[in-house]
Amino acid sequence: MSKFFSKKYDALTPYTPGEQPRDMQYIKLNTNESPFPPPEAVVEAVKREAGACNLYSDPTCRALVEEVAKVYKVRPTQVLPTNGSDEILNFAFMAFCDRDTPATFADITYGFYEVFARLHGIPYRTIPLKEDFSIDYREYMGIHSTVFIANPNAPTGLALSRAQIEEILVSNPDNIVVVDEAYVDFGGESCVSLIDKYENLLVTQTFSKSRSLAGARLGLGFANEKLINDLNTLKYSTNPYNVNRMTMTAGVVALQNQSYFDEKCEEICKTREYTKEKLTKLGFFVLDSKTNFLFIRSDKIDGERLYNQLKSRGILVRHFNGERIREFNRVTVGTKAQMDAFLLAVTEILKENQA
Amino acid sequence: MSKFFSKKYDALTPYTPGEQPRDMQYIKLNTNESPFPPPEAVVEAVKREAGACNLYSDPTCRALVEEVAKVYKVRPTQVLPTNGSDEILNFAFMAFCDRDTPATFADITYGFYEVFARLHGIPYRTIPLKEDFSIDYREYMGIHSTVFIANPNAPTGLALSRAQIEEILVSNPDNIVVVDEAYVDFGGESCVSLIDKYENLLVTQTFSKSRSLAGARLGLGFANEKLINDLNTLKYSTNPYNVNRMTMTAGVVALQNQSYFDEKCEEICKTREYTKEKLTKLGFFVLDSKTNFLFIRSDKIDGERLYNQLKSRGILVRHFNGERIREFNRVTVGTKAQMDAFLLAVTEILKENQA
Repeated sequence: MSKFFSKKYDALTPYTPGEQPRDMQYIKLNTNESPFPPPEAVVEAVKREAGACNLYSDPTCRALVEEVAKVYKVRPTQVLPTNGSDEILNFAFMAFCDRDTPATFADITYGFYEVFARLHGIPYRTIPLKEDFSIDYREYMGIHSTVFIANPNAPTGLALSRAQIEEILVSNPDNIVVVDEAYVDFGGESCVSLIDKYENLLVTQTFSKSRSLAGARLGLGFANEKLINDLNTLKYSTNPYNVNRMTMTAGVVALQNQSYFDEKCEEICKTREYTKEKLTKLGFFVLDSKTNFLFIRSDKIDGERLYNQLKSRGILVRHFNGERIREFNRVTVGTKAQMDAFLLAVTEILKENQA
Repeated sequence: MSKFFSKKYDALTPYTPGEQPRDMQYIKLNTNESPFPPPEAVVEAVKREAGACNLYSDPTCRALVEEVAKVYKVRPTQVLPTNGSDEILNFAFMAFCDRDTPATFADITYGFYEVFARLHGIPYRTIPLKEDFSIDYREYMGIHSTVFIANPNAPTGLALSRAQIEEILVSNPDNIVVVDEAYVDFGGESCVSLIDKYENLLVTQTFSKSRSLAGARLGLGFANEKLINDLNTLKYSTNPYNVNRMTMTAGVVALQNQSYFDEKCEEICKTREYTKEKLTKLGFFVLDSKTNFLFIRSDKIDGERLYNQLKSRGILVRHFNGERIREFNRVTVGTKAQMDAFLLAVTEILKENQA
């Protein structure tokens, strides 16, 4: 830290993204990316757009916003595209929390919520997940706090129903409830259809998981027009051209190729259930996932040991050091071939550790 | 504004980007873009990279940082790429200003500095430009404040020398001096070579102007390793994957095609001087520009009137409503053909207004 760095960040610990080692080619099951490339139509459109990059992108993202509105059956004024969904989450912490309006989220959830709160000096409280790692939605009712809920949750993969989210919304009429739906396309119930019904609802989504565009950085916020205006005030005070031309075009064309992603999501869900079944047979405890990853634990091997032994075999999964979850690993669902390689490695590791 | 929006933004007025009307095709001389597309090698590389966008971009931006280090003769640890230079400027306000460390900048300069200060609740002071619109560097000496200087300045186009910037650096050893070099490639003296000499220097640059990549969003920060670490703390607490894959690749390949941009910069500078000469003959007062734009005023026609009459003829320039500059227009230097069209329109408008 330099002597010039503002003291207000003394307690700030940045987010740690999933590792990207370069010593060898890994089977990457650690950052919940899609194993499938974007469709060829996206690649072609990006190439056409790249040649026009001497001109700024449209700060209103009009073409994209209109396509989103069509696909999600909302109005264009109810959509805000961002540089990944981390940016819309950051804006939400800035806009709807402050010293007098604390934030609340689960103790085990997307690790960035805590970072955002600390970054902006926002008081926050965490609510422990239940013993079974599910969220008790009743604990979020009437709490006079801005609520951040990843639904489905990460790294657990468990989901609340839309009806349960509605109870949280109804009981906190004076506070914003942010529903982070990064993984919703793999089996969750989306709350986007509720934005006209609840003035305090902000839904965030991302193109990074189900839409094969993690490397393009594209997130979306959905809310009523007033909230979107608030968030736009922050966007235009931070980075008006936050979404570049190539990403904007990739997003538009991705939305026009919905069936490609529907097929891939279905395939990933099928592979997830296949992997879960195999792991259960190997004696693993596997949480019920509505996402593109599995959260797994075995009595036969320590979580960190499994992580390390997989890594030495060229398979990357994600291990967290939090107290309640250090026996677990989070495993992205890749292709069937990737998961077979993973299952084979796990089988061998278990055997070796038994011997 | 919704009832949920934090009261801390009551005094915030967002930045207004240059207009992008869609009612007709304009000759766009209003946002200082390059009139030349990026080279074909950039377009081809982007296409190859687009197919890998299912995977996250490298948060360390290693390939790009190494290429920047090579071209700018600095160490990779002295470089931070961002989502446009607005993002690095935003990080600089967050990192190096707070309630106890105010910001100082010129009264007439890049309008975003004031927005950033207000966004983050940072006290700030503006120092008036001299009568001739130049910056009096002596007024920035020993002021116990974080300094933001656009060099060359916008919208005036005037530049300080490297030696003058050094005087500001030496006299403010306990404060960061941010030198915003968005336009430096059109005739300014860069301070990048000084980052080893002054621990309080942060230089920002952009690929939006001289490198024909405004629509790709790519900015750079240059400073000693400690300052870059501070800024990285904010990046990893905001948006670790801030630069997407396509933009990162575009940046790398752009740097590998330096001669293309050198030629284009030279051409723009030549066209700038040609346009200046013609405008002077038409009776305009034209500031001495070291940028890709001209700041112009005529006694024969009111600034806003000229702006409007150019617009009705399909030519967009930028008019600002600030007290000291409302008689001016800022005109981006485009191709020779675009400037001839502009000059013809100006000639006709002057004639009509005389009649």
